[in-house]
Amino acid sequence: MRAEIVSVGTELLLGHTINKDAAIVARILAEMGIDLLHQQTVGDNGERLANALELAVSRSEVVFTTGGLGPTDDDLTKNSVAAVAGVPLVEDSDTTESLKEYFGARAMSANQIRQAYMPAGAVIFPNDIGTAPGCAVSLASGGHIIMLPGPPRELTHMLEKYVRPFLAQLIGGAIVSREVHVFGMGEGVVAETIKDLMTAANPSVAPYAHAGEMFVKITAKAASVDQGAALCEPVIAQVRERLGDVVYGIDVPNLETLVVHELMSRYMTLATAESCTGGLLAKRVTDIPGSSAVFGLGMVTYANSAKENELGVPADLLQTYGAVSPQVAQAMAENIRRIAKSDLGLATTGIAGPDGGSSAKPLGLVYIALAWADGCHVRKMEPTGRYLGRSFVRERTASTALDLVRRHIMGFPLDFTWR
Amino acid sequence: MRAEIVSVGTELLLGHTINKDAAIVARILAEMGIDLLHQQTVGDNGERLANALELAVSRSEVVFTTGGLGPTDDDLTKNSVAAVAGVPLVEDSDTTESLKEYFGARAMSANQIRQAYMPAGAVIFPNDIGTAPGCAVSLASGGHIIMLPGPPRELTHMLEKYVRPFLAQLIGGAIVSREVHVFGMGEGVVAETIKDLMTAANPSVAPYAHAGEMFVKITAKAASVDQGAALCEPVIAQVRERLGDVVYGIDVPNLETLVVHELMSRYMTLATAESCTGGLLAKRVTDIPGSSAVFGLGMVTYANSAKENELGVPADLLQTYGAVSPQVAQAMAENIRRIAKSDLGLATTGIAGPDGGSSAKPLGLVYIALAWADGCHVRKMEPTGRYLGRSFVRERTASTALDLVRRHIMGFPLDFTWR
Repeated sequence: MRAEIVSVGTELLLGHTINKDAAIVARILAEMGIDLLHQQTVGDNGERLANALELAVSRSEVVFTTGGLGPTDDDLTKNSVAAVAGVPLVEDSDTTESLKEYFGARAMSANQIRQAYMPAGAVIFPNDIGTAPGCAVSLASGGHIIMLPGPPRELTHMLEKYVRPFLAQLIGGAIVSREVHVFGMGEGVVAETIKDLMTAANPSVAPYAHAGEMFVKITAKAASVDQGAALCEPVIAQVRERLGDVVYGIDVPNLETLVVHELMSRYMTLATAESCTGGLLAKRVTDIPGSSAVFGLGMVTYANSAKENELGVPADLLQTYGAVSPQVAQAMAENIRRIAKSDLGLATTGIAGPDGGSSAKPLGLVYIALAWADGCHVRKMEPTGRYLGRSFVRERTASTALDLVRRHIMGFPLDFTWR
Repeated sequence: MRAEIVSVGTELLLGHTINKDAAIVARILAEMGIDLLHQQTVGDNGERLANALELAVSRSEVVFTTGGLGPTDDDLTKNSVAAVAGVPLVEDSDTTESLKEYFGARAMSANQIRQAYMPAGAVIFPNDIGTAPGCAVSLASGGHIIMLPGPPRELTHMLEKYVRPFLAQLIGGAIVSREVHVFGMGEGVVAETIKDLMTAANPSVAPYAHAGEMFVKITAKAASVDQGAALCEPVIAQVRERLGDVVYGIDVPNLETLVVHELMSRYMTLATAESCTGGLLAKRVTDIPGSSAVFGLGMVTYANSAKENELGVPADLLQTYGAVSPQVAQAMAENIRRIAKSDLGLATTGIAGPDGGSSAKPLGLVYIALAWADGCHVRKMEPTGRYLGRSFVRERTASTALDLVRRHIMGFPLDFTWR
């Protein structure tokens, strides 16, 4: 089944709104194994919308429209869809009732009332968290046009609650997706390593890069959810085995969530001492709800005096080796661990740039240290070929530091190299 | 002039990537007064891309492509564009040199080298922060295809530095844009306050919301940059006068940049003590290059024991009033100022959620304190009507804290209310 999205709204073509709706619909279609081959955006213009719809129904069996269903005058989607389907708009009494309930004692304008008029014969999708309902209109060609509201919250809710079951019925069966999350290996190397698995049709296997990390998505189609899950299991196991200890979790949102949860389950605590990451590491740990169980203290010792006075890094260490050195990183990690009385101490020091680099200590050089009860590991992060910016260096450092914690508590080698 | 965007990438049609690029291009076109009437997305598929390009050049004078310029095998944009333009791909020696520099000692793959091949006769736009250059190809029809890389950072940089001047030359004359940045007033209230100014055509005036802040964009078209700038000046002055002290800067990227630069120019220093923001405040300060001149120490005292032991917040204060209280916020700010020997001490404590709220201290309740040599101001942040999530509370707190610093050093009232 081929699908297409027609996004409607002048605000999209003015750049006032980023088209999240298209990505939300696209992801659900991908999960369900429905091929999305085209997406178009047009403004609130009757002629261009009609042309876009005609083109869409000529090449796709299911056409989604997003936006242009609300009460304002430039909302043309419903009229255009009804015209393409060759049906009139008729009042849907359930929607009228639901609008009356939504507005309560307040008067409804003629435009508000207009929202209850839907293409004749359409399957109505109620809008539980807004006013404009969606619907599915069947075409004489055997195809369908599915109209969805523009606000992403309303769209997401309607998709999950009403449209997903509607589509499942259209295609028959269930779709199950699982994500194998990876840190420490680039997308290209991952793809190379699991190349043969990626040729399978069911479950399908595909690597995706996402915010400096990556994951492998495994999607199975089956008669039931249980059967789909069972199809995924052996493939997850294979991917895990191929990739080894760079796999940090299955279906987890990110590295910090994994690390915080693993620490929690072990009743372990972590303290941070940051120089170049300047609070980013503590921020990412405390992004996670419940992180107070594992994290009590972080210090951002940006100045050398702060490293000396607050962390107790010996002045002669700073003088002899400089703040960006394995020796200072180690002292920071060991001292914050002692000060916070935590199980682990994690420290970063480096040259985030854009200024302050030298040939001996180039932009992007970073030392990360992890201290535990009877040991300390210092990782040197070599700069990338070309300096990729302050934000890149800081995020990469924070991620690598979190990964070091993961490796330590899971018993994986600490001195791995990024591949 | 009619423009169109063709977004290329299977990741867009799988919903793995939200199409930010289209919005970024759209906004610049809107600013320049170029009409964007269509946007299409196709996957990495030669036939569908060729069809999309043919349709686009048949109805639009300037066609932008985004994505599909990188080194992987499924990058087809360049071949398809060259085919539509009827020109071969030829090596661009400047690009080859720049790629060699980028990769340094590392070997380049055949795919990497392929990035230096561009449509013959194209105007090349260098990629200063990545590898794949962009270009503008002239068509026999008099139209143009402008190819841009997919990563939003690279796209934005290339657009601003190379494509904007190229387009300005195409349309003749100069476009000058200025941004009046605002913190402490919602988009609706701003729009209401400057409603009459927004009806003008040249300079045009429009408010934009952006990451919890907002700005008013003033865009003038004129024969020269100087004349455009002169047209903007009186309008900027009017907007400033109308909005008052919620205007924090003109053409500054964000609140933290303004605050760090204002502190630098006054040779003032700041230290932070964070509870609910968990490092985010220090992170935002140290996001700014050169921040080490104003920021030497931050503490993330997430646990009560850390507030007591590291910051010296009296135990009875914590016991009597609780960690989320104006008393503890004040002690945190005053103590971090003393410990860091800084001019200013800035502290946050609150309930970020999603757990830990109570009727006395609901989710979203936050106290922010700013201490200086002979005073301290504590701001109570009331929760929003509905709890909008941990990340919202933390970002809003950090922004409000930074704004408090701005208000203090600029001599504006500290006890203003958000409008």
